[in-house]
Amino acid sequence: MSELSPISVAFLVFPNVTQLDLTGPAQVLSRLGNTTVDLVWKTKDPVPTDAGFALLPTRTFAETQSADILCVPGGFGTMEVIQDEEVLNWVRKVGADASWVTSVCTGSIVLGAAGLLKGYRATTHWASHDQLAFFGAEPVKQRVVFDRNRVTGGGVTSGIDFGLALAAKIRGEDHARFIQLSIEYDPQPPFESGSPEKADPATLERYWGLVNRSAPGRADKVKAIAKRLGF
Amino acid sequence: MSELSPISVAFLVFPNVTQLDLTGPAQVLSRLGNTTVDLVWKTKDPVPTDAGFALLPTRTFAETQSADILCVPGGFGTMEVIQDEEVLNWVRKVGADASWVTSVCTGSIVLGAAGLLKGYRATTHWASHDQLAFFGAEPVKQRVVFDRNRVTGGGVTSGIDFGLALAAKIRGEDHARFIQLSIEYDPQPPFESGSPEKADPATLERYWGLVNRSAPGRADKVKAIAKRLGF
Repeated sequence: MSELSPISVAFLVFPNVTQLDLTGPAQVLSRLGNTTVDLVWKTKDPVPTDAGFALLPTRTFAETQSADILCVPGGFGTMEVIQDEEVLNWVRKVGADASWVTSVCTGSIVLGAAGLLKGYRATTHWASHDQLAFFGAEPVKQRVVFDRNRVTGGGVTSGIDFGLALAAKIRGEDHARFIQLSIEYDPQPPFESGSPEKADPATLERYWGLVNRSAPGRADKVKAIAKRLGF
Repeated sequence: MSELSPISVAFLVFPNVTQLDLTGPAQVLSRLGNTTVDLVWKTKDPVPTDAGFALLPTRTFAETQSADILCVPGGFGTMEVIQDEEVLNWVRKVGADASWVTSVCTGSIVLGAAGLLKGYRATTHWASHDQLAFFGAEPVKQRVVFDRNRVTGGGVTSGIDFGLALAAKIRGEDHARFIQLSIEYDPQPPFESGSPEKADPATLERYWGLVNRSAPGRADKVKAIAKRLGF
């Protein structure tokens, strides 16, 4: 694969990230060939995730001034991130020149807060979908949304579909099919409960109950933050 | 969820692990409620993965003498692992008393080498499927295989299906559906190329070409190791 053009992928990592938002597409994109994958944060200290273990940044913001692909994952930690000018400035800076400005799950709320989705069609985790509009984006109900060089995925596991779709754009469909075979991506979910349309009402109610207990008034808070940021 | 019984999950982590084999099911199982997820290795030094970044063990072998769920991920690093008595002894020890002895991808080859699949039906990454028989297991072509308390998943992304299926056994189907909704697991692969049956011949040939270049004679080596281990 030595004839392939080099590609650098920079994932933002941050405390309380939903780690699969990042590790899913990282697995796919690491197989683009001639590719470096970095996890980037303020320092190289371990960053706690939502799943009981930490991720270790490979580079700091200061060390990473550009990337071919910028990818921002989501999770409850995004609430802190969109109030952190140091992080937003780094996302703005790298996003300004990246070939692909991307996100998985509520990472698109971070792209939005950095001003990178104004006037773009985008998606996010189904439970945060309406919040994209606070930042001037047009929410679209699709698992993966391409709009010019912005690519956004829905909740968590959409990152694998996103990674394969982006791989096809960058290296061609044959290479994406090769990656899909290598990771045996022939999903067979044991239940039909992966979207609010498919889940039964009790499951949906339970989910909103958890959100409202663990992050009460979240949408209103995001709206207020968007306002403070000038949207 | 305070009435839920506590559950400890121990993932083996090792150099050159396919990180999504671990991070996929870790995301699912971390949402079982009242659950601890640990990544366990000889030391707590960062462990390099196949995707360009390291994982940080949360505990050492010495600190982890038991777990309710033992899960072994796969990857090219398994070749070293099945020749490392220190690792196999830990897997044997924890596996002997675990409620669930599990694996994703070629992690089942490690379970096999530890003697934990003798007489059990099991699966693994499609390209290593036949190797299970070297360790006295019965290879079954299914994405997730349950046999008594052994649960094995196919290649890489099967770990998400595996995690949800195991979640249903442990906490009931309603809880598994809740987790599935929370991670928006409504997969929409952009291509039909996730299994050797679905992939086109050129993709399949390319895959075997890569395996034969990067790990020539792998199946024969695994067979020889199995023999040395007394199978």
